[in-house]
Amino acid sequence: MTLYAELAHVLRERIEQGLYRPGDRLPSVRALSAEHGVSLSTVQQAYRVLEDDGLAEPRPKSGYFVTASRSLPSLPSISKATQRPVDISQWDQVVELVRQPPGKQVVQLGRGLPDISSPTLKPLLRSLARLSRRQDMPGLYYDTLYGTEALREQIARLMVDAGCRVSPEEILITAGCHEALSCSVRAICQPGDIVAVDSPSFYGSMQTLQGLGLKALEIPTDPLTGISLEALELALEQWPIKVIQLNPNCNNPFGYIMPEPRKRELVSLAQRYDVAIIEDDVYGDLAYDYPRPKAIKAFDQDGRVLMCSSFSKTLAPGLRVGWVVPGRYQEQVTHMKYIGSGCTATQPQLAIADFVSAGHYEPHLRRMRAQYQRSRDEMTEWVRRYFPASARVTRPKGGFMLWIELPEPFDSVALNEEIKAKGVHIAVGNIFSAAGKYRNCLRLNYAAKPSAQLEAAVKLVGETACRLLAEAQVG
Amino acid sequence: MTLYAELAHVLRERIEQGLYRPGDRLPSVRALSAEHGVSLSTVQQAYRVLEDDGLAEPRPKSGYFVTASRSLPSLPSISKATQRPVDISQWDQVVELVRQPPGKQVVQLGRGLPDISSPTLKPLLRSLARLSRRQDMPGLYYDTLYGTEALREQIARLMVDAGCRVSPEEILITAGCHEALSCSVRAICQPGDIVAVDSPSFYGSMQTLQGLGLKALEIPTDPLTGISLEALELALEQWPIKVIQLNPNCNNPFGYIMPEPRKRELVSLAQRYDVAIIEDDVYGDLAYDYPRPKAIKAFDQDGRVLMCSSFSKTLAPGLRVGWVVPGRYQEQVTHMKYIGSGCTATQPQLAIADFVSAGHYEPHLRRMRAQYQRSRDEMTEWVRRYFPASARVTRPKGGFMLWIELPEPFDSVALNEEIKAKGVHIAVGNIFSAAGKYRNCLRLNYAAKPSAQLEAAVKLVGETACRLLAEAQVG
Repeated sequence: MTLYAELAHVLRERIEQGLYRPGDRLPSVRALSAEHGVSLSTVQQAYRVLEDDGLAEPRPKSGYFVTASRSLPSLPSISKATQRPVDISQWDQVVELVRQPPGKQVVQLGRGLPDISSPTLKPLLRSLARLSRRQDMPGLYYDTLYGTEALREQIARLMVDAGCRVSPEEILITAGCHEALSCSVRAICQPGDIVAVDSPSFYGSMQTLQGLGLKALEIPTDPLTGISLEALELALEQWPIKVIQLNPNCNNPFGYIMPEPRKRELVSLAQRYDVAIIEDDVYGDLAYDYPRPKAIKAFDQDGRVLMCSSFSKTLAPGLRVGWVVPGRYQEQVTHMKYIGSGCTATQPQLAIADFVSAGHYEPHLRRMRAQYQRSRDEMTEWVRRYFPASARVTRPKGGFMLWIELPEPFDSVALNEEIKAKGVHIAVGNIFSAAGKYRNCLRLNYAAKPSAQLEAAVKLVGETACRLLAEAQVG
Repeated sequence: MTLYAELAHVLRERIEQGLYRPGDRLPSVRALSAEHGVSLSTVQQAYRVLEDDGLAEPRPKSGYFVTASRSLPSLPSISKATQRPVDISQWDQVVELVRQPPGKQVVQLGRGLPDISSPTLKPLLRSLARLSRRQDMPGLYYDTLYGTEALREQIARLMVDAGCRVSPEEILITAGCHEALSCSVRAICQPGDIVAVDSPSFYGSMQTLQGLGLKALEIPTDPLTGISLEALELALEQWPIKVIQLNPNCNNPFGYIMPEPRKRELVSLAQRYDVAIIEDDVYGDLAYDYPRPKAIKAFDQDGRVLMCSSFSKTLAPGLRVGWVVPGRYQEQVTHMKYIGSGCTATQPQLAIADFVSAGHYEPHLRRMRAQYQRSRDEMTEWVRRYFPASARVTRPKGGFMLWIELPEPFDSVALNEEIKAKGVHIAVGNIFSAAGKYRNCLRLNYAAKPSAQLEAAVKLVGETACRLLAEAQVG
């Protein structure tokens, strides 16, 4: 990160944590320059970043102020630990989400769908079409089990941005990040084993642990900095944890980016207790700040980090192309991939390799990052407008998911039941917890371009939440 | 099956089992009519089928004779049981097969690749290209977890040919038959459970059992009629078997079709001992006789048969589209599908649905069945010509795999090592057994159109086998 980006980052954190309130005067350029030992122009650049983000505004002859009109909702509280490993259930509520065919008169605010209508995806479709016209029909053959070489080369190149230097031979292509995570867990764990997870945690990973007969130990997680290393260390001392599974960059559902020093510390903790780390980086390329944050894998010294990702969030989920860098577990993960589904579909791999190598990936990402950041602000504003005033809302640093916490005993399952009948779906909070916590929370997807229809859907969710909360607090 | 096809079937079995030898006179039309209670013209039709197959030839005024020039090699012997459930290994030799990228100067006689060069596949490619050009880009979205509705409707229709009446809602789309089998096993079994399998058995299924910590109990299997029901019943009495997994139609690698009465009996055996049946029907549509044989699923009365299949052998493996009809295990199999890889890639599903519903599937199958049958004869002839005279060879009734048994102590692993250096690959026999049996056997793929290059490759394999066998018998 450049100096000014780092400084902007620090200031943003302070504003978001409420150290400076809306309308407050921010430190002078001179004061910041002295405090951080950087030049005046570096501070000015940092302020311009905040200005672009709508977080700060200059007033003539008075310096910078926290944007007054921005009364951002408070952040959710730090998640509480369950204290003990638990079995996972709630499959019925997850299947509710994933059984829906797309686009059937439903506003789907629940699933992890990116926006795939961007014109920057056109070359990918052209490439798919071109592959279908080729005489040698490469898309029809079984590929090698490891995946297409051309694609693995491109992924190795992209991973440099995440601070990882891996060779194409260390990469295994999978059917989405989902399969990457599943193979990784299966390669390491036996039924009954304990997996430490950040909490809340992606419901898909939770279900995978459940289906494999594993127990999840939920570790308290901060909505700004991620999993609590202190709590994790305590857990590592108390329980025979086999692996730590987490989603450090543009976390789903919290939206935080785990700070670099904490990533480094996490790896050394894993070394000390000799456990593996499964890193879900699927939203990492969608961090709003450029360059993108480093992966935990970047700090891996002895191959204990299994990094999982995919093109499902950055390009399109229907292609089902993901990958895993399994480190020292390469042989076991490859075996699990083979016994799970065999080779991965060939044509989407070839098309993505074309797309990336022709230079279409970066401009597409730039566009999507900017669009999602704007949509985040719009969605946050709608939530502020339509949801109960007591709602606490995350401030995602990437991706396209908003997490909303309402006071207990609010029940998002009851909310979902009511709005479903009206054609709107959300992800209920409890599926993000092994122990069924977060029933008072929900997750909204803001990938789709803001529209009147979308606002109406959020309004419906918010107003229904207001009514249910009032009823719950009375009853 | 029509009367004449049934009769032709009976006669073919008798010829293949050596009841009538090459040059022998076959029973007169009148005698057969009396024996089977069918009309004279039915017998004549049956003989014409045998004539078309090159098994029988008419001689003027003398009736029908077994074709003299056909000196088919003997069939392999009935496989021997291991007597006890065993752990499976040999992953290193399987990965050898599946790690190869396609078409790299290698004649791949080892893997299960169909011929994908047929012009009857063109509409499928056109459909793929068309989908990529559609403005609403349906191929980019997540599908429903169950798979595209349009495709499930077409599969339900196709399954009628296998004697199965299932609704689209009973079908779950998977990433190939491989994932269908994997999800089915995982839905039913816990680590340590025992699975009864036909033997030899597809190495992919063997590896799946191994990777899940299951034990395989290999049941003796007849190269003409399939798994021994007598041995199976004995095993069911002796061991706590959880599921019977087998491949009854155009068996891989034996090529037999399990006769209908035996399928029926198998189901009632499973009922009596209350075990599930996992049926791999992936080659069923490639049976050379039309109509195709019934699936075991056709005789299922209480949902205990999980039928698995895919378009990987009939259309193209690179598409990775298969399915499972999980019967009473639907909920568990769906869960396993979700935790394994989530949704299946969308575009190939849509393209196949187009292809089938537009009526392109049947003509394509007809063509491939005829081509594979011709190739079987050609390949058999090459084996007769170049392999040791003591080689026993299967006579597949569908699909595109030949199984060759050589006298002990012949070692196919040593054979593979020698020919690999010369760019030819085979599947070694021992990977088809949990216990590492069949090391004296090998499997050849005859999907590719016969060519001089192919013949040279088979010649190389055969001559190397001759030399190694001679050395082994001397040493």
